[in-house]
Amino acid sequence: MSTTFRERDIISITDFSREEILALCASGQRMAELERSGKRNSLRDALKHRTLSSLFYEPSTRTRTSFNTGMRELGGRYDGFSGTEGTSVMKNETVRDTITMMCANHNDVIVMRHPLDGSLQWAADVASIPVINGGDGKNEHPTQALLDVLTIYALRGERLDGLRVGFGGDLSHGRTVRSLSLALSHFDDITIRWAAEDFLGMPEDLVQLLSARGVTVIRDASVRDVMRQVDFYYMTRPQLERMQGVRQKDIVAMMKQYRIDMPKIEGVSTRLLHPLPVNSEIAEIDHRVYFTPAQAFFAQAEYGIFLRKALLHEMLGHDGYTRYSGKLPAELGVGNNRLARAILAGKQSGMFIDKITNGTVIDHLAAGTLRAVSDALDLENRGYSCTTATITEKPNPFIKTNLRDLPERDLKRIALLSPEPTINTVAEGRIVEKYVYLLCANSNCITRTINEDVPPRFFNDEGSIRCRYCRRPLAVAHRKVTAEDLRAYTASLPTRIQPVAYPD
Amino acid sequence: MSTTFRERDIISITDFSREEILALCASGQRMAELERSGKRNSLRDALKHRTLSSLFYEPSTRTRTSFNTGMRELGGRYDGFSGTEGTSVMKNETVRDTITMMCANHNDVIVMRHPLDGSLQWAADVASIPVINGGDGKNEHPTQALLDVLTIYALRGERLDGLRVGFGGDLSHGRTVRSLSLALSHFDDITIRWAAEDFLGMPEDLVQLLSARGVTVIRDASVRDVMRQVDFYYMTRPQLERMQGVRQKDIVAMMKQYRIDMPKIEGVSTRLLHPLPVNSEIAEIDHRVYFTPAQAFFAQAEYGIFLRKALLHEMLGHDGYTRYSGKLPAELGVGNNRLARAILAGKQSGMFIDKITNGTVIDHLAAGTLRAVSDALDLENRGYSCTTATITEKPNPFIKTNLRDLPERDLKRIALLSPEPTINTVAEGRIVEKYVYLLCANSNCITRTINEDVPPRFFNDEGSIRCRYCRRPLAVAHRKVTAEDLRAYTASLPTRIQPVAYPD
Amino acid sequence: MSTTFRERDIISITDFSREEILALCASGQRMAELERSGKRNSLRDALKHRTLSSLFYEPSTRTRTSFNTGMRELGGRYDGFSGTEGTSVMKNETVRDTITMMCANHNDVIVMRHPLDGSLQWAADVASIPVINGGDGKNEHPTQALLDVLTIYALRGERLDGLRVGFGGDLSHGRTVRSLSLALSHFDDITIRWAAEDFLGMPEDLVQLLSARGVTVIRDASVRDVMRQVDFYYMTRPQLERMQGVRQKDIVAMMKQYRIDMPKIEGVSTRLLHPLPVNSEIAEIDHRVYFTPAQAFFAQAEYGIFLRKALLHEMLGHDGYTRYSGKLPAELGVGNNRLARAILAGKQSGMFIDKITNGTVIDHLAAGTLRAVSDALDLENRGYSCTTATITEKPNPFIKTNLRDLPERDLKRIALLSPEPTINTVAEGRIVEKYVYLLCANSNCITRTINEDVPPRFFNDEGSIRCRYCRRPLAVAHRKVTAEDLRAYTASLPTRIQPVAYPD
Repeated sequence: MSTTFRERDIISITDFSREEILALCASGQRMAELERSGKRNSLRDALKHRTLSSLFYEPSTRTRTSFNTGMRELGGRYDGFSGTEGTSVMKNETVRDTITMMCANHNDVIVMRHPLDGSLQWAADVASIPVINGGDGKNEHPTQALLDVLTIYALRGERLDGLRVGFGGDLSHGRTVRSLSLALSHFDDITIRWAAEDFLGMPEDLVQLLSARGVTVIRDASVRDVMRQVDFYYMTRPQLERMQGVRQKDIVAMMKQYRIDMPKIEGVSTRLLHPLPVNSEIAEIDHRVYFTPAQAFFAQAEYGIFLRKALLHEMLGHDGYTRYSGKLPAELGVGNNRLARAILAGKQSGMFIDKITNGTVIDHLAAGTLRAVSDALDLENRGYSCTTATITEKPNPFIKTNLRDLPERDLKRIALLSPEPTINTVAEGRIVEKYVYLLCANSNCITRTINEDVPPRFFNDEGSIRCRYCRRPLAVAHRKVTAEDLRAYTASLPTRIQPVAYPD
Repeated sequence: MSTTFRERDIISITDFSREEILALCASGQRMAELERSGKRNSLRDALKHRTLSSLFYEPSTRTRTSFNTGMRELGGRYDGFSGTEGTSVMKNETVRDTITMMCANHNDVIVMRHPLDGSLQWAADVASIPVINGGDGKNEHPTQALLDVLTIYALRGERLDGLRVGFGGDLSHGRTVRSLSLALSHFDDITIRWAAEDFLGMPEDLVQLLSARGVTVIRDASVRDVMRQVDFYYMTRPQLERMQGVRQKDIVAMMKQYRIDMPKIEGVSTRLLHPLPVNSEIAEIDHRVYFTPAQAFFAQAEYGIFLRKALLHEMLGHDGYTRYSGKLPAELGVGNNRLARAILAGKQSGMFIDKITNGTVIDHLAAGTLRAVSDALDLENRGYSCTTATITEKPNPFIKTNLRDLPERDLKRIALLSPEPTINTVAEGRIVEKYVYLLCANSNCITRTINEDVPPRFFNDEGSIRCRYCRRPLAVAHRKVTAEDLRAYTASLPTRIQPVAYPD
Repeated sequence: MSTTFRERDIISITDFSREEILALCASGQRMAELERSGKRNSLRDALKHRTLSSLFYEPSTRTRTSFNTGMRELGGRYDGFSGTEGTSVMKNETVRDTITMMCANHNDVIVMRHPLDGSLQWAADVASIPVINGGDGKNEHPTQALLDVLTIYALRGERLDGLRVGFGGDLSHGRTVRSLSLALSHFDDITIRWAAEDFLGMPEDLVQLLSARGVTVIRDASVRDVMRQVDFYYMTRPQLERMQGVRQKDIVAMMKQYRIDMPKIEGVSTRLLHPLPVNSEIAEIDHRVYFTPAQAFFAQAEYGIFLRKALLHEMLGHDGYTRYSGKLPAELGVGNNRLARAILAGKQSGMFIDKITNGTVIDHLAAGTLRAVSDALDLENRGYSCTTATITEKPNPFIKTNLRDLPERDLKRIALLSPEPTINTVAEGRIVEKYVYLLCANSNCITRTINEDVPPRFFNDEGSIRCRYCRRPLAVAHRKVTAEDLRAYTASLPTRIQPVAYPD
């Protein structure tokens, strides 16, 4: 057994190298061979004392039960919840506390689905056992991409190089196309073809990224053209709910063009994949197509079992277990403003702040936000002073308070209303520290919620800064972030939350 | 072990012969004896590598957990869902796709409850593993009838012949009385007694069917009269929600008459059965009756365990498992209009249709439905022509379109609005095929839903035609269906969906 | 293994003696030692044929999954439901029937959470297998108190005597503080300190009870004062929903005072406990405190596993199982009016009741309730006579009916509207029996629901009368209950529902 995946978190498809993907494919194929030779249960001793904690904050049948099947066939067990009704989540429990509880609860691995982007990286940071991303908001679902790759690998005679694949449905709004194409970009001589309206087409940034990695991306005139020139056609569900600006007439035309029906597959040997479920109201794949040899998405569903069984076996198929310590890693308690400090290093003004000998000045607030920010902080009711002021010549108002060391929740409340506020810490009438508070700009990122208490953190991805959790690039509007800033910040991070490096 | 039930679907109580019912009773009794001799767990190796997929689209505690207990005591496992919150069903997944997914998921048997009549036969058609009906709408719940029979068999010294049974509560609206009495009709010298208001009484068609099978059915003047003359009194929950036309005063009188309280059971040795749950608001069985020797419904509950354990053992207690193929049976992709064609065979008119050289004429639409049908088809927005016309001398309007080979969904949309439409396929200006599209008339039948894509299919039951799925007789209003039509249709069916034959 | 807990119900923390608590602590510590020495799974044969029925009528992640983990590590299995959606509870099934079903279902132990006070004692009365209280309404959650004690025992070097513990948060409305302090009151030299607003403080009756048992209870001026003088600080969630009369300003001040943040724990060696979940909206424990050595509530969470694993092992770790009889214990069918009769013994008046030769007179109804009571009984629609009358000189109206032996549901309907009604049974024109119908006064007690059919029952607790189910003292407003009444009543009770005796 490879030790690559032993006790490792599975958070993003971008964490996997070519060698790792191939190792998982080989392992998945071994599981498929056991099944075919009647040995489905031959590994029942492998995980016989291991338990999967299955935490689905959002609906799932398929992903949840396929992980369960993997555990079952390896002799392991599972427990958890599906849907938050009937759980402590309704009592405002944080992800941090739920995850820690599940570690205290003697589980060996967690698979989790959660509506917030980045929630799975945070879960992995907090957990003392490995965490598998079963879908974090609109962000990632890495075992889906891995099972897609395994299916292609298996059905093409254990080869990925030279693959020609078509993408259909909604290439713009879903996460599936992005993840699968990034996984395939590790391989040689990959051609991706697609045909769709502009507003459903492949995002320009993805095309550029793929091209830079050597993938050939071709836009064809019609789905039928694509179908004739590819080995696999990967269909996805149109995300109608995100097409509000589109005219009804265009949607009908679009529906007719993309839907896979009998004429579209006639005379081609292309095999159809789909992450499932097919939406029976939309019927993006016609009923009759299900009964043709082109249909490969139910074989794909079984490869989902093989992939997850293989992954669990690689991760947990060894003796022993992790003793739970009862402690949270101390470095997770540290907030993010080290980056902000790095950015503003050397810019302390030493300006004298009248009337506040010890406290904080929140500066550079966006015009028009003063009232909302001071309401959100509610300083006076909490027993602190609060002076709000706007200097006539300057557009940006400020707030003075005798509260020092603003809690992270206060910093977020400010930044959600007025991005990139400057925070001045005042001691004995002088500014002793000055920094900008930076927050990920992705509105669905877990770091932007108040109650979850996830501090914003970033990492240096080949010169650009990304959110540690949702991995979106950090958009800093009003400041210049330099290479030195990044270096200083990166050096300051504790080991556990070291920057993520993309492999290869 | 008998091999009668090996890998067999359990869909309807009418599929069981006398011998099969007795074989299951004997097997259930063996399970009861193991329990009584302290050997509850002696069969823990029988299904140790088998998994039950438990798919409850509707609420269940009792049925779901008793199947689970059966699996557990045979060493097997189970997984699935109870309630559709938290499942892909919310994402418009069809029964076909969910079932196929669960086969791909390496389960060995499925037990399912679903709100639509006929959904379980469809599930069994689609599945590559055996399917057990845990309740399909108002249609069937065969393991309930089987456990009722087992309870009577066991408590009467392993005999069913000569049984005298009373039925109480709501004999008209529930499925329990019908299923149990049909199961008992296989045995000799059966007497059924009942006493109830007309609107709660035994349906006339059921009485006739039972009489034809040799069962004596007697209506008594009072519940007390019944109670004195039977071995078992089978009480059921009144389906108050289906009695909207009934006067409040009548319901109160009816409640008083049917409720089982202490005076009703005084001095008789009759034993009370009930499928459970008792509705505590209605209290069709009084609290005090629970504590008397008449109460046998909790023993009955345990016979539910023995029956399901026995059934699972008979079905799965052998080596090996079914390899999942990834394919759907091709014959399921064929629609139903072979029956329609058989009915209209030889009646092609060859009439010239002006302006449509290739397309379809939908004829014989019901008066007043033209607008609704053409709206439902929405042909023009889909890029096809649509001409609607009413000929003054004839009451039935028609639609012409250049769309050929109407998809099954379109045929259903038409037939739901205008039953038994005539479909004329036109090629080169001539009608080349003409058929009537027939749909099951049961409004809760799965074949009448658009999204589920279940084609209507029928079978020949001793000269009458029944829906393959909900098994209701086909009501054909405007056509004559002959014996030849039936023969031609039956001969045309693929093996997998051969007509169901009632045993005995 | 101790046999103290074998097949025993776990309903209230007050049922445990000092020796029993210490025995459980020692057993829990053995589980902790197995875990620490890598032997988490060494007891996998202990309960390998046992099943836990997990019946959570209310949300739970933590309690439910920790019992599951206990079962799993002892080789046992579990089944049941979490949340009542998707269960027969939606069909008006009683606790009695659900519990009996689960016994018929071959489970070996039940853990249940239910919204009604006293529901767990009723479940234990009905069940033929042991029942563990996982929370009954606002009443009890004994395994929480036991795990709290185990945590303190383990972290203090296996000693409880001499403990100094602080309580924080909401000492007035929650059940945790009461249960834990009562458990600790068995030990020597216990000091409890607290500081809170009056309306959040320790209830006076609890302070008196603890003092009587030798516990020193001290109110300090501030949380910080408490923190400096205790070994453990037990924080609880403020029950904001129960503070409606409190001014917003007071709540803000209170929040500031009780919340555990960095300044509060600075420089002290106190360890923080919390039953969890922490409410992330309120954040009664600040995020940063989680990462300090003071935080012991995640270790406490793991002791919850050890405690439950130990408890299940003590209860079920022996051969054999309970055969289900199919019967309910006959003595549970007997109502409560034996107490009422004892109270009024010798007071039969023999008064002549005109016009009712056989029937019931319901007397001493509260002024103004006559109409509501007669509407609730709805006697005429049920076919009985009903005469309502108010005698001018007396304030209390009465009802006469020819219905004899009023069903318990009718008695409850009366008593819910007019407490302590007098019931006169009339035969041949004379009163042959006269009693007062008494009902527990706790509005959330299961005995006050109509549909559950739980008869009120009481027990003699050192001279005062308590409800058998919710254990609240019986408040009898209009009658004098004497020691003789109690003796007569207690003597009349069947063995199975003998009065509960507090141990020690």
